[in-house]
Amino acid sequence: MPVLKYYYDVLSQPARAVYIFLKLTKIPFEPHLVGLGKLEHLTDEFKQNLNRFQKIPFIHHGDFKLAESVAIVGYLSREYRNLVPDYLYPSDSKAQARVDEYLNWQHMNTRLCCASYFMYKWLLPLRTKSPPDQDKVEEAKSRMLSCLDEIEELWLGQGHKYITGNTVSVADIFAASELEQPRLAGFDPTEGRPVLKAWLDSVKKDCNPYYDEAHIVLNKIVNKQKAKL
Amino acid sequence: MPVLKYYYDVLSQPARAVYIFLKLTKIPFEPHLVGLGKLEHLTDEFKQNLNRFQKIPFIHHGDFKLAESVAIVGYLSREYRNLVPDYLYPSDSKAQARVDEYLNWQHMNTRLCCASYFMYKWLLPLRTKSPPDQDKVEEAKSRMLSCLDEIEELWLGQGHKYITGNTVSVADIFAASELEQPRLAGFDPTEGRPVLKAWLDSVKKDCNPYYDEAHIVLNKIVNKQKAKL
Repeated sequence: MPVLKYYYDVLSQPARAVYIFLKLTKIPFEPHLVGLGKLEHLTDEFKQNLNRFQKIPFIHHGDFKLAESVAIVGYLSREYRNLVPDYLYPSDSKAQARVDEYLNWQHMNTRLCCASYFMYKWLLPLRTKSPPDQDKVEEAKSRMLSCLDEIEELWLGQGHKYITGNTVSVADIFAASELEQPRLAGFDPTEGRPVLKAWLDSVKKDCNPYYDEAHIVLNKIVNKQKAKL
Repeated sequence: MPVLKYYYDVLSQPARAVYIFLKLTKIPFEPHLVGLGKLEHLTDEFKQNLNRFQKIPFIHHGDFKLAESVAIVGYLSREYRNLVPDYLYPSDSKAQARVDEYLNWQHMNTRLCCASYFMYKWLLPLRTKSPPDQDKVEEAKSRMLSCLDEIEELWLGQGHKYITGNTVSVADIFAASELEQPRLAGFDPTEGRPVLKAWLDSVKKDCNPYYDEAHIVLNKIVNKQKAKL
């Protein structure tokens, strides 16, 4: 098997999800940090030699370059089937389809909604050194709240403990990783949502110590911001 | 094999993509039309008995209910492997990963950008009987144009004839189906883009007569609107 190079930054939600997946499965990889804050991914050299999409995460597996976190998890689950526990990414066709259903749903829901709020409330003001556009923040917040309702009703409200069944899967890891991001912008998605909180606690427990490891930097920033208030 | 019930409306981009996939592969299915225009998907009865997400497309395969077009294509490719040609959805791990890379990329790019423009320019004004919000239309158009540039450069500009290789795959079918949608709002994405046009012509040719069949209603509306001008 060729060397697996993993390019990531723990400030990226999908990069944290793939990182937790790699650590849980013990798939051997060579870590390559890409500093999003330093905009390292936006250079021409990066585009030409590393990843033409100029985003993270991505992998180089020998000569094979692959982007898109969900595609990466599917690929690695095939390539390292003996290392990937069936509950994390099932080989059974129907169970796999259920996980894929969430992984495709989340792009325009959990991911888009939490990331938009984070972007308008925290990232853009930081980058442009201007106050946030309140209309955009409110619009994004309202969509994020609807999305949290949907996660509770349409996924966690289906009679099972996790997003797609009674064991943790990559669907939960991707969901949890997205839900952590708005905490950087001062919003705790589990506040007033006991179902969501109980689920997130279970995901953390199942994925630790790697869950906490992936979120060390994020938690440091959150705590530093809280101390300033 | 249980009966496969396919719920769709050809006015939905992903529903057209799955329809073309089903017809090309000759996977036997029972068609169930859901009138998006009549908001048939928004009733409580629909949510309870058919699809809790209240969106199309989705399938019922015996007792198994599945939403999300990309998850559906993956599932059907496993269940009906002998009917699905390898070029459409590859069984080879790397080739499959390449198709999955596009299918995951498109959610926040081709799909989001083309659908947003269509929504702000055509659908919302039709539903609310109010003129379009020009700022939102312009913002959506600008993002759609950047996305078309990226499709030409990052996918079609990689030295192969189709999105992910030298044969048509479901990646092309999903991409083409999304690109047809803004035509309803008077925008031809291939105008001034010979590379995109040549690719789209090839996809149509490879997928006909089913491509045209899936787009009969859309083309009728486009032609009717043109005749009015």
